[in-house]
Amino acid sequence: MKALVGTAVDYTGIRFNVAVIWEGNTIVDVTPRERLGDYDIDEVYGGRGYVVLPGFINSHTHVAMAKFRGMGEDLPTPEWLSRIIWPAEREWTPREIHHWALLGMAEALANGSTTVNDHYFFADEIAKAARELGIRAFVGQTIMDGVDFPLTKSEEGFRFFRRWDGKDDLVKPTLAPHATDTVSPELLSEIGEFARERNALVHIHLAQSREEVLRVKHRYGITPVRYLERAGALNERLLGVHGLYIEHGDVLRFGKSGATLVHCPVSNLKLEARVPPVLEFEAAGANVALGNDSPNPTGLMDMFREMSIASLAQNIITGSSSSVPARRAFSWATVGGAKALGLKAGLIRPGYLADLVLVNARKPQFIPEGNVYPLVVYSARGSDVKIAVVGGKVIYRNGLLVRIGKTLGELWSEAKKSCSGDV
Amino acid sequence: MKALVGTAVDYTGIRFNVAVIWEGNTIVDVTPRERLGDYDIDEVYGGRGYVVLPGFINSHTHVAMAKFRGMGEDLPTPEWLSRIIWPAEREWTPREIHHWALLGMAEALANGSTTVNDHYFFADEIAKAARELGIRAFVGQTIMDGVDFPLTKSEEGFRFFRRWDGKDDLVKPTLAPHATDTVSPELLSEIGEFARERNALVHIHLAQSREEVLRVKHRYGITPVRYLERAGALNERLLGVHGLYIEHGDVLRFGKSGATLVHCPVSNLKLEARVPPVLEFEAAGANVALGNDSPNPTGLMDMFREMSIASLAQNIITGSSSSVPARRAFSWATVGGAKALGLKAGLIRPGYLADLVLVNARKPQFIPEGNVYPLVVYSARGSDVKIAVVGGKVIYRNGLLVRIGKTLGELWSEAKKSCSGDV
Repeated sequence: MKALVGTAVDYTGIRFNVAVIWEGNTIVDVTPRERLGDYDIDEVYGGRGYVVLPGFINSHTHVAMAKFRGMGEDLPTPEWLSRIIWPAEREWTPREIHHWALLGMAEALANGSTTVNDHYFFADEIAKAARELGIRAFVGQTIMDGVDFPLTKSEEGFRFFRRWDGKDDLVKPTLAPHATDTVSPELLSEIGEFARERNALVHIHLAQSREEVLRVKHRYGITPVRYLERAGALNERLLGVHGLYIEHGDVLRFGKSGATLVHCPVSNLKLEARVPPVLEFEAAGANVALGNDSPNPTGLMDMFREMSIASLAQNIITGSSSSVPARRAFSWATVGGAKALGLKAGLIRPGYLADLVLVNARKPQFIPEGNVYPLVVYSARGSDVKIAVVGGKVIYRNGLLVRIGKTLGELWSEAKKSCSGDV
Repeated sequence: MKALVGTAVDYTGIRFNVAVIWEGNTIVDVTPRERLGDYDIDEVYGGRGYVVLPGFINSHTHVAMAKFRGMGEDLPTPEWLSRIIWPAEREWTPREIHHWALLGMAEALANGSTTVNDHYFFADEIAKAARELGIRAFVGQTIMDGVDFPLTKSEEGFRFFRRWDGKDDLVKPTLAPHATDTVSPELLSEIGEFARERNALVHIHLAQSREEVLRVKHRYGITPVRYLERAGALNERLLGVHGLYIEHGDVLRFGKSGATLVHCPVSNLKLEARVPPVLEFEAAGANVALGNDSPNPTGLMDMFREMSIASLAQNIITGSSSSVPARRAFSWATVGGAKALGLKAGLIRPGYLADLVLVNARKPQFIPEGNVYPLVVYSARGSDVKIAVVGGKVIYRNGLLVRIGKTLGELWSEAKKSCSGDV
């Protein structure tokens, strides 16, 4: 058995000075620290001044885009896409994707995410990289038939799912249609049906731009949410990402279906200068999870930052200074993601997955006293994470990716070398 | 002579692989790294993969409020003030203020700010703490006559100014009227006149709440900006903080005066659920600086975070995804603050003050290549700062406050001990 010692914080409460004990991949007890001796423990980390959190669940990301960090910044979004991102994406090779995905996931892990939900090309490489690293990963091969793009064929998305379904404890396939305006009704129905048969998650960009909504309305006479519904894809297995341009009636429709809204606040603010009415989605019955989209445009794979900005941005659109208590933003990054992905994770209690992070709070800005949630959300940073545990295994410790015996810097050097030309 | 080596970034440009050389308190050259040997250098820090920035100027803060971090979070603002902050402030002792101010400034420094502009009670203690630490500090004793508060007498604000004016190279006094609704017309006129005679800076909370605006209008029939103007205080020596509820005509009036708007984005979003139209102020001629208000409510003394959120929040209110290029947010945190405070600082060029920070960019998320501004604003964090130099002296290095030979953690312990009761 192993243990993390500190102040354990999950959405249901704060327990000071406890030991979180696990065996295999499962938490077996959360006990006062003094009673640690009752157990036969091999390894203990943490102590006074540390905080134990459920690992964050980054519910929407494109980890390989770590390669593009800093490129095309400050450009208007259409130019960022057409001049920078799309041309760069056409140049991908499987080998490069593998390296940059490894780096992107390692960064996510080092900043406190123990699960990522990825949506990209060459998904096999991303899945393999996740397995090397030991991170929990949901991976979807981007499916689209409405755009001429060399890296993706619709069939490959289904084949990828079949190849990986049930094959790995940590790496799970999803179906990843690109967006409502890039997938035809026939293909979307096929995805909906396949998902129903295989109990697959469907991970899709939803109403992420005005153009998407206009195109769907123009072509089919209905909104993106109705389009999903008509294809049989609007249900609890759906993760709809962004949801920026959804009209009120459709917020209710989306909520009623029990689908998950994946909110990516930094990306939304940078690319679309707005955020969705997350609290309205939640009130309508939707599950809410958080994602950080990718190192470009958001700059950092840091869910602490996403939580704080998720909360601050809702204040603006609601006009209320305490619209999202810190604890609620924290729930989106933990239990919200777990619910979306069907994981028994996101809480620190017996029977839950030992997906945990240990945060150094031995610093004046992050004092584990009193109401710890705001300190986690507003004062802690990804750089405070010391240890990450996935499925009971310590896979990140003080800068080292333990499973592969390398640092982030080394992975970065290797990723750069993997590119044929200059990055 | 001493030098920092790395990629030097200031508002005017990016120079890769240079040495920033200073003598005494002044930068004397910025030269290609290879020519470092032309100089007689005692100490060199940095190298490949480091970034040299002008130290940030935190243009509005209450550093001693480090004591209150995490208290009253998630409460609506009026309750946060009346139930938590005001009662806690009545309990201050000079000894406690000294310790907590030291800690707050040390945290600011460790996160990249080489100058703070403080506004609080027991200003002598704050000024003395700044001198011990070696940080550049502008300090004002809060002046108000419209509120019954035990810790402040109006005369003391003027006396404090006289005691410290011209007495210290790094610590400078300001006049710090509390806000437009807590200072009478007579007192504000006296402040305006005193400031004119002594060429003093006037640092005031301005239109920070709807209630403030309503009170001023009700009492005097004019807006807060007009109220400042009538008292002779609306001019280039004024730092007006927040500016959240200023009508358009007054934005123009404020801009025309050449005053500085100090924008505190995280604080504004948390407490008032809005941000001011910073770009309109700037277009009207106002100078713009950034502040972080204080560890409560913002949680962190990290100007990197303030820059990124300043930029993202303007996107929402302008509806434009690239409303504030990273370089502009960076200018607010550097040259904007320098202009507001009358410092020859904020740029990395000969003749400017050697107020510099060295940032570790030897990590995948902060690659000093290409357009570095977005990486500084969106990917770097205060935790990446390795060294801070103020007036030519290395006063922070790898966790150590060099002048006082202590770590942040040690200062924190001492601050806690200084309190009579529990914190």
